[in-house]
Amino acid sequence: MPIVALAGGVGGARLAHGLQQVLPPGDLTVIVNTGDDLELHGLLVMPDHDTVVYTLAGLADPVQGWGLAGETYAAAAMLGRYGQPTWFRLGDRDLATHVVRTARVRAGERLTTVCLGLQAALGLAGRVLPMSDDPVRTRVRTDDGWLDFQDYFVRLHQAPEVREVRFDGAATARASSEALAAIEAAEAIVIAPSNPIVSIEPILAVPGVRAALDQARQRGAPVVAVSPIVGGRALKGPADRMLRSMGGDASALAVASRYVGLIDGFLIDEADRALAPSVVALGLRVLVTDTVMVDDAARTRLAAATLAFATGQRTR
Amino acid sequence: MPIVALAGGVGGARLAHGLQQVLPPGDLTVIVNTGDDLELHGLLVMPDHDTVVYTLAGLADPVQGWGLAGETYAAAAMLGRYGQPTWFRLGDRDLATHVVRTARVRAGERLTTVCLGLQAALGLAGRVLPMSDDPVRTRVRTDDGWLDFQDYFVRLHQAPEVREVRFDGAATARASSEALAAIEAAEAIVIAPSNPIVSIEPILAVPGVRAALDQARQRGAPVVAVSPIVGGRALKGPADRMLRSMGGDASALAVASRYVGLIDGFLIDEADRALAPSVVALGLRVLVTDTVMVDDAARTRLAAATLAFATGQRTR
Repeated sequence: MPIVALAGGVGGARLAHGLQQVLPPGDLTVIVNTGDDLELHGLLVMPDHDTVVYTLAGLADPVQGWGLAGETYAAAAMLGRYGQPTWFRLGDRDLATHVVRTARVRAGERLTTVCLGLQAALGLAGRVLPMSDDPVRTRVRTDDGWLDFQDYFVRLHQAPEVREVRFDGAATARASSEALAAIEAAEAIVIAPSNPIVSIEPILAVPGVRAALDQARQRGAPVVAVSPIVGGRALKGPADRMLRSMGGDASALAVASRYVGLIDGFLIDEADRALAPSVVALGLRVLVTDTVMVDDAARTRLAAATLAFATGQRTR
Repeated sequence: MPIVALAGGVGGARLAHGLQQVLPPGDLTVIVNTGDDLELHGLLVMPDHDTVVYTLAGLADPVQGWGLAGETYAAAAMLGRYGQPTWFRLGDRDLATHVVRTARVRAGERLTTVCLGLQAALGLAGRVLPMSDDPVRTRVRTDDGWLDFQDYFVRLHQAPEVREVRFDGAATARASSEALAAIEAAEAIVIAPSNPIVSIEPILAVPGVRAALDQARQRGAPVVAVSPIVGGRALKGPADRMLRSMGGDASALAVASRYVGLIDGFLIDEADRALAPSVVALGLRVLVTDTVMVDDAARTRLAAATLAFATGQRTR
């Protein structure tokens, strides 16, 4: 059963890992946000892609959720000695990923081809597709002006309030043919519990993605989303504060509202059971379940529940 | 007293380090061979430059003479996992050097400017100048055909016999203005005990270098060389075998012969004292001394002896 997941970083990686556990090898395609990507020390760094890939490969740091388990930082210390910016600290093995990727892209290979090659080398059965081969860069407007996403996210530790978000390059980016084909072939599409504003919406902003999802629904393939907000709080990252600082409400319901017209069903946590009628009132089916992925078993359980929920409501 | 040294890798680095010990800060300029440079994983790797710089910075691995002391190899293992060639193994901190250098050169800075910036960051008082900002690549002809230098030197462990050497790009390369100015200002020029065929002659092959050395001699600044061959053997590397496989004799005298017309004086080891009259017969002054740099004190002693020998024979 070919399944597509749209994902950002840690939360998306965890659900993708659960989906990998419950699906036959090769059935999972993750379309990953590239709006968080950055050029650092002349290298193309893809935080969301790499978090998902390292997680699916079983290499991710289990505590922080991103980066590689047992990582070392010798190169980072030397980069600092040379006066390079140190606020985005790259591990030694992670640096190798960026070096190889950058070399292959510079040599003329398509970004998607390069990423798939790296994934194959790490033994992934499924695929993690950049949403586009063309650069898209998320920028956030704070009270001090527009910032590059990682400037806000890592360098400033998400301290400023975000007033507005834009995705530079998205309007002219082309969705990768692999991503569009995966959506076209999917039996169901799962929107992972990632930040809707800066992880999922950049993917949707790439021309062609939204239309492909609409077509999938028209042919009966459901689109379901898992709430990244539980009890009014983001489990990871600044999604709750962003929802508020951009004039909304930090709730699972607010996320569901953003996805109206895009999805068929919405998964909320037991903690948010009281919101279920309001989600239904948006015209969505709802599943109330335990969405907090505290361990591998919880990832697998949520993935299975998500797929059952998605396919149980197939319209054909 | 501004002094210029022409140097390749380990042997050159050791004498340069000795010169740094005996000269006032800032008086030493090393012009370094770039014919050994290579592009690896999309990065510009400069083995001779980095060996000299790490040595002058006190960071070099004291046993192998190249690379950084206490180096780790986490990134190299990951590069191998991605299917990158592993025969030229880069340490984690060394990788940082190549990453920064490549980024700055790609951003449009001149190679010399970039190298000087890295050196300043490591606290060097003197300067290590690439012989040219333009790429020159040494290639060696073996019985199996032409090979890139590092292919021969590292990947094949210098197993094939070298029949011929060429310096691709040298004819159209321009010597850096800094290198030419340093020769012009030098009170003496020292050719380090590096491989004459693949470390020193690439430097001499860059248009302008040889003429600048001739002019220096004309104005009275001596050029002296230290033999890299002691007792018929190279202390490091394949210089002895190369001298033989290219149809000559593996001796200090053979090296002196290659330098006739270029140098005023030649330093040979006590072990080669019997060759002194033959060196004199070539029209060169000769100094017989202990040239084997077994420790820091020996580097300093040889550097001091070399400078005294050079300046003692000044012609004005």
